[in-house]
Amino acid sequence: MHSFELFLPTRLVYGSDSIEKLPAAAAGCGKKVLIAYGGGSVKKTGLLDRVKKALADFEIVEFAGIEPNPRVTSVNAAAKLCREQNVNFVVAVGGGSVMDAAKAICAGARYEGDAWDLVRDSSLIKSALPLFTVLTNAATGSEYDAAGVITNLETNEKLPIVSPLLFPVASFCDPAVSVSVPAWHTAAGAADIMSHTFEQYLVMEGNDVSDGFCETILKTVIKNTPICIKDPANIEARAAMMLASSFGCCGLLAIGNTPSPWPCHGIEHEISAWHDITHGAGLAIITPHWMRYSLNEKTAPRFAKYAVNVWGMDASLDEMTLANAAIDKTAEFFASIGIPMHLRDVGVDESHFEAMADHIPTCWWPLSGALHPIDKAGVIEILKASL
Amino acid sequence: MHSFELFLPTRLVYGSDSIEKLPAAAAGCGKKVLIAYGGGSVKKTGLLDRVKKALADFEIVEFAGIEPNPRVTSVNAAAKLCREQNVNFVVAVGGGSVMDAAKAICAGARYEGDAWDLVRDSSLIKSALPLFTVLTNAATGSEYDAAGVITNLETNEKLPIVSPLLFPVASFCDPAVSVSVPAWHTAAGAADIMSHTFEQYLVMEGNDVSDGFCETILKTVIKNTPICIKDPANIEARAAMMLASSFGCCGLLAIGNTPSPWPCHGIEHEISAWHDITHGAGLAIITPHWMRYSLNEKTAPRFAKYAVNVWGMDASLDEMTLANAAIDKTAEFFASIGIPMHLRDVGVDESHFEAMADHIPTCWWPLSGALHPIDKAGVIEILKASL
Repeated sequence: MHSFELFLPTRLVYGSDSIEKLPAAAAGCGKKVLIAYGGGSVKKTGLLDRVKKALADFEIVEFAGIEPNPRVTSVNAAAKLCREQNVNFVVAVGGGSVMDAAKAICAGARYEGDAWDLVRDSSLIKSALPLFTVLTNAATGSEYDAAGVITNLETNEKLPIVSPLLFPVASFCDPAVSVSVPAWHTAAGAADIMSHTFEQYLVMEGNDVSDGFCETILKTVIKNTPICIKDPANIEARAAMMLASSFGCCGLLAIGNTPSPWPCHGIEHEISAWHDITHGAGLAIITPHWMRYSLNEKTAPRFAKYAVNVWGMDASLDEMTLANAAIDKTAEFFASIGIPMHLRDVGVDESHFEAMADHIPTCWWPLSGALHPIDKAGVIEILKASL
Repeated sequence: MHSFELFLPTRLVYGSDSIEKLPAAAAGCGKKVLIAYGGGSVKKTGLLDRVKKALADFEIVEFAGIEPNPRVTSVNAAAKLCREQNVNFVVAVGGGSVMDAAKAICAGARYEGDAWDLVRDSSLIKSALPLFTVLTNAATGSEYDAAGVITNLETNEKLPIVSPLLFPVASFCDPAVSVSVPAWHTAAGAADIMSHTFEQYLVMEGNDVSDGFCETILKTVIKNTPICIKDPANIEARAAMMLASSFGCCGLLAIGNTPSPWPCHGIEHEISAWHDITHGAGLAIITPHWMRYSLNEKTAPRFAKYAVNVWGMDASLDEMTLANAAIDKTAEFFASIGIPMHLRDVGVDESHFEAMADHIPTCWWPLSGALHPIDKAGVIEILKASL
């Protein structure tokens, strides 16, 4: 077992009554709140009104229009608004993009310069506004971690911002809110949850507890995603997906495991930075190709374990057969929930592959530490196979 | 899915190098530390010296002799010592009893009266010294929760003390420390972990995530306990057991489930209060009898799920057959790891059964909320069956 630290100070509040608990949780933070959200969906569904009603005793400032792959320009604008308006705390209402942006806004509100500085060097984050989140979509797990991912279209970079100061104080998760999430975002969210799990599970060494937790998340998503797509109002399936999402990124799935550099996320962020594609779709497209790149005699036992414990395959088969079958099943699953199988299907061509592969080592954990080490040629090989 | 809140502010630090991280974690708490421990085992193994060495830059006060089923007399003595010596924080070095007592000591140090008041009425806990734990044994999960259980021999009561102020700031878990735990305590600890899980898993409604997490813990303990008993120095097995213990009591296993009154713990605390037996052994003895009491057509699906997913039984069998087989397997497992099968084997007779059954409703969650409701006659039925 590898050494690890698990630190999860966010209060996770689940249930149909969760949002109504927000004002009590925010008591003591001050009177002025910035509510941050994305497009119009939280208006259409009535969620924004519900949150504003819950916060009726506070002075509300709104910031709308946070993009998917949220941009540092929006972060800077919202952070400036917080400073000008003397905002005391932030409530993010949305999915991963809104929560991620809100983390950067909370840090940026306490920093006079460009928030991109804080993305580039998290040691500059000395303070942050308290953050609360109201979750709309099962996907990134940002409701229960201390990280966000911010895009800079000027530099073609999509990079994480990470600091223990960015844990939400509390996250409010009502699975019923997610019934309005359309099939595409449901599927992309599912792929994101599965990718988070693969990044932590498909490493050289796991253990009985972390492996069982990872397999639980994978089986939950594989079972419930098709239900959510076919029957969007199925609350039990939506609830299972939301729970799975909350534990995907918080470190619980990696306890004691070989540390992972999260290779698929490192590669996908490059693709999104250049092409602004849906993160989960990008992950789903490259994941099977990363798996095939990583499969060899040394790594086959991990894939075989995945085959037996997640896909229920026959443990008496040889490991390489199991491993290949599980990778095929993974690709088939992503296709079955409506995700394109090729990068070209989402508008990506190979023109920036070299630049992407060159950029990863400047901003990401070394991919030499992946299940099977990945060098620059390896990144390009995975990207080309995904094309 | 039922509403829930999960709040886990303790920093969980695992690894062979974990104890050396204690001084940095305690920096800022003050200079004077009370190190609390039990009998001589932490002296014999050298663990106490290792902790004292790590804390060499602090002023150390020691409090030894905390009992199994820790007594409020010890808590009061240690709390008084903290007040007299102006202790700034407490480090518990031991298993569940020492950690539980230390929680009460931390609260008692900030309270002038009898610490039993705080057990009886947790709303009196307004403040507590910061607590750090150094874990020796996989069992109670006290390293990652906000509760302790304290015994009062004068009143024949064994009751929980619970407050969010009692979460350890950080818990340091080196699985190698547990290789010296003898077979009896290894087995009793395993029974405790399994009971924690049953209390949360065997309820009317679970979900894919919580059920998978519970099944992971149960399978981990069933697999690794015999290994630890046969090969006490097997670090991987010890590590898996320690991890399983840490997640047993923190709420993670119950997320979204029907709330449980933890019936076996309610009953076992009565037995321990009168007879001072090993908690895990008491739990292992009564658990199969509680299961048989609880099994009926309505509850059979939960037991059948346990049979299939934990014991690998044939899902095509009928639910009642599966349920009975799983209960038998549970009892056989406890016997196989060396735990007596009857209360009389650990010195318990039926003389106090009435008093025990009468006392539970005065100090515990209503057992009417258990998987199958338990009234006074039910408590006595379970106790007599366990005799």
